[in-house]
Amino acid sequence: MTERLVVVGGDAAGMSAASQAKRLRGDGLEVLALERGRHASYSACGIPYWVGGVVDDEAALVARTPEEHRANGIDLRLRHEATGLDLDRRELEVRDHGTSTTYRMGFDEVVIATGARPRRPEIPGVTAPGVHGVQTLDDGEALLDTLEHSPRRAVVVGGGYIGIEMAEAMVNRGLEVTVVTRSREPMATLDPDMGAQVHQAMEDMGIDVRTSVQLREVATGQDGRATGVVTDQGELPADVVVLGTGVEPETTLAAAAGLPLGRWGGLVTDLQMRVFDADGVWAAGDCVESIDLVSGNRVHVALGTHANKQGRVAGTNLGGGYATFPGVVGTAVSKVCDLEIARTGLRERDCDAVGFRYLTVQVGSRTRAGYYPGADQVTVKLVVEQRSGRLLGGQIVGGAASAKRIDVIAVALWNRMTVEEVVSLDLGYAPPFSPTWDPVLIAARKAADLVRAG
Amino acid sequence: MTERLVVVGGDAAGMSAASQAKRLRGDGLEVLALERGRHASYSACGIPYWVGGVVDDEAALVARTPEEHRANGIDLRLRHEATGLDLDRRELEVRDHGTSTTYRMGFDEVVIATGARPRRPEIPGVTAPGVHGVQTLDDGEALLDTLEHSPRRAVVVGGGYIGIEMAEAMVNRGLEVTVVTRSREPMATLDPDMGAQVHQAMEDMGIDVRTSVQLREVATGQDGRATGVVTDQGELPADVVVLGTGVEPETTLAAAAGLPLGRWGGLVTDLQMRVFDADGVWAAGDCVESIDLVSGNRVHVALGTHANKQGRVAGTNLGGGYATFPGVVGTAVSKVCDLEIARTGLRERDCDAVGFRYLTVQVGSRTRAGYYPGADQVTVKLVVEQRSGRLLGGQIVGGAASAKRIDVIAVALWNRMTVEEVVSLDLGYAPPFSPTWDPVLIAARKAADLVRAG
Repeated sequence: MTERLVVVGGDAAGMSAASQAKRLRGDGLEVLALERGRHASYSACGIPYWVGGVVDDEAALVARTPEEHRANGIDLRLRHEATGLDLDRRELEVRDHGTSTTYRMGFDEVVIATGARPRRPEIPGVTAPGVHGVQTLDDGEALLDTLEHSPRRAVVVGGGYIGIEMAEAMVNRGLEVTVVTRSREPMATLDPDMGAQVHQAMEDMGIDVRTSVQLREVATGQDGRATGVVTDQGELPADVVVLGTGVEPETTLAAAAGLPLGRWGGLVTDLQMRVFDADGVWAAGDCVESIDLVSGNRVHVALGTHANKQGRVAGTNLGGGYATFPGVVGTAVSKVCDLEIARTGLRERDCDAVGFRYLTVQVGSRTRAGYYPGADQVTVKLVVEQRSGRLLGGQIVGGAASAKRIDVIAVALWNRMTVEEVVSLDLGYAPPFSPTWDPVLIAARKAADLVRAG
Repeated sequence: MTERLVVVGGDAAGMSAASQAKRLRGDGLEVLALERGRHASYSACGIPYWVGGVVDDEAALVARTPEEHRANGIDLRLRHEATGLDLDRRELEVRDHGTSTTYRMGFDEVVIATGARPRRPEIPGVTAPGVHGVQTLDDGEALLDTLEHSPRRAVVVGGGYIGIEMAEAMVNRGLEVTVVTRSREPMATLDPDMGAQVHQAMEDMGIDVRTSVQLREVATGQDGRATGVVTDQGELPADVVVLGTGVEPETTLAAAAGLPLGRWGGLVTDLQMRVFDADGVWAAGDCVESIDLVSGNRVHVALGTHANKQGRVAGTNLGGGYATFPGVVGTAVSKVCDLEIARTGLRERDCDAVGFRYLTVQVGSRTRAGYYPGADQVTVKLVVEQRSGRLLGGQIVGGAASAKRIDVIAVALWNRMTVEEVVSLDLGYAPPFSPTWDPVLIAARKAADLVRAG
């Protein structure tokens, strides 16, 4: 008998799993995919660039159209939402938002790829017109509609990746932009000393950055539209308010089905992306927790690149192959206008939390030979275990060609290298690409000296 | 009694060693440095960009002036050439080209940092006016003098790094450029399939590339100046001929002193940069051979970044500290106009030579998310051991932000990773920096599939 796989969630993780399983099993596996929204397989990471006008066309963000998925033999159902999961009966309850009907669907295997949901601040006015999240293509469309009315001032709530990317988008649209964050510095995924550099650069770009601010409410006008935000440090007027306050795993369905969740509210899987203690249940993408290979702890990292890999791993194993997702080291890159930002591994506070005793170095260098035109400034920070000299984390802030240098640190972390070992790495050198000593190596050299000095 | 260290050769390796030793030992160590040329501590790698007008000022290429070295307590003697090395007497014979006198100088420790010399083709006319090497600042000055006379056509001999960088320099100066190489494709440090992409891109830039060509002689006019080159495939007219035909270790002094040389004519040292079987003799830079950590063999790689590191390692050990130079994996990056080129590890022919049985993959991808503006094409080739799946080498050709991606492969090689492991690496992803699957990971994934298929 043909087995049936149902994938819940039709974005990166879900459709990667569906595609890979179908490719490997063909007619031997019936594959259905349920997506509650109107779009599947799109790049949520691209939304800030679409809203900012850098990417013209919404369609460009769609990696694979529903028609393409269907041509590949996947029964993709848009606006169909899984509202219940019965693990004993092996059935899903599905709401068809198109016809407003509900039906039940049996499965042999199920992949939970329900993604993440924005953490909306629970304050008065947060649902007012003129307040926009940027999680889905529909969110992006709504925000673009608001931008049609030529707003003058934008307040972006949140100083993380989405916050700074949306700040750039609003700058690109010609708005006056204020970023409000409750953190000490923007980009709290970096240590505050590196975040301060991002802060300064954003101010230099004309972006007003307010840190350590508590949001009280969204102020609204007589028409009910947002007119600004009220904070513990006064009111900030705004014609549009953008929420970039991070996400958390969307595991409502899984929790209701009795599946155990991890510390961060995400599903916990084995290396093959099978949910622990739940036969025939798989999970992938923003709704799962991953092993942090530096600390050994589970973490929640919502990133399209992990979602794609995890989905493919689940699909490969569902398809009779073998693949694993060993974990992450916490690499992320971003930019705000011309400033590139990157991080990987543990921050100082992460080290404190897990018990690593560490030292840090921070070095300023250049992205190219000093004499080569366009040599931009770049700052590299390393976090290193005392005594052992083991690399624990790295952060980079700088001009063009800074961010992807983090990959060297990420691969070093993956391989548990010490800074003493990193110093000797054979990295690409030529004047248009690097100083003779690569900035990452200069930082490692300085860190190795400190480790030796004890 | 104060010990005396004499460093022979005042460029990257020699002056790094001198500076580091002096810094650590201070007045306890007398440090002399002999440099036969008129300049010390300059970036030879920068010469093509100076000649091409990208870097305005010769002085910009000098990392540290003679005055700065002297202020640091180093007795740097320019135009003083070590012409003899007597290991029994612990003496150097030194020729002072300024006064045309010769003297002898004792030493306790000596660092040989005599660099590399260009491999000039031994053909008639190769020393004619209008034929230029680009090894030293003096070479660069001479070439710039020739360019003052508004030549129209340049022939660049050699299709390696120096050749393509000089081709770019001549293009920047507005000349018609022909590159002549005896290899099947330019950039023979890549496999021919990747070299072919460089070839095509250079032709698209308007550079005439002639491959598999044997040079017979340099043609000269009545005034004795070069007028072109004669090859086995006919004559190519030229107003200026640039030699970019590679280098070999400059070990004349060392060989005459009876020091044993390696297979490639370079000095062979231990991990601390001590010459084997020669007490108190150290070596660093382009005159030494290094361990290739992939094959285990000694190789000769003339690169400023290695010279700097090796010099610093020698200086640290001379200064009473401890440092090692474990070896190289063969990483190099370059560009010709807008095309970036990178390589690391073993090529197919290297695998054949050392006995690795391998498979290869080549994938085309993009440097950014496909929808993000400026997403350039990039091709990644991987060379992978059969069965084990161990990564053996990688090559990259592409647009902006392609070349430094080689560092990921370099660090993976350093850690002897398999492609199966590489697939899972946590590399930086965001639309302006990478597709969801980084091009290196796509290549690794394809290679892992091939390894599994046997």
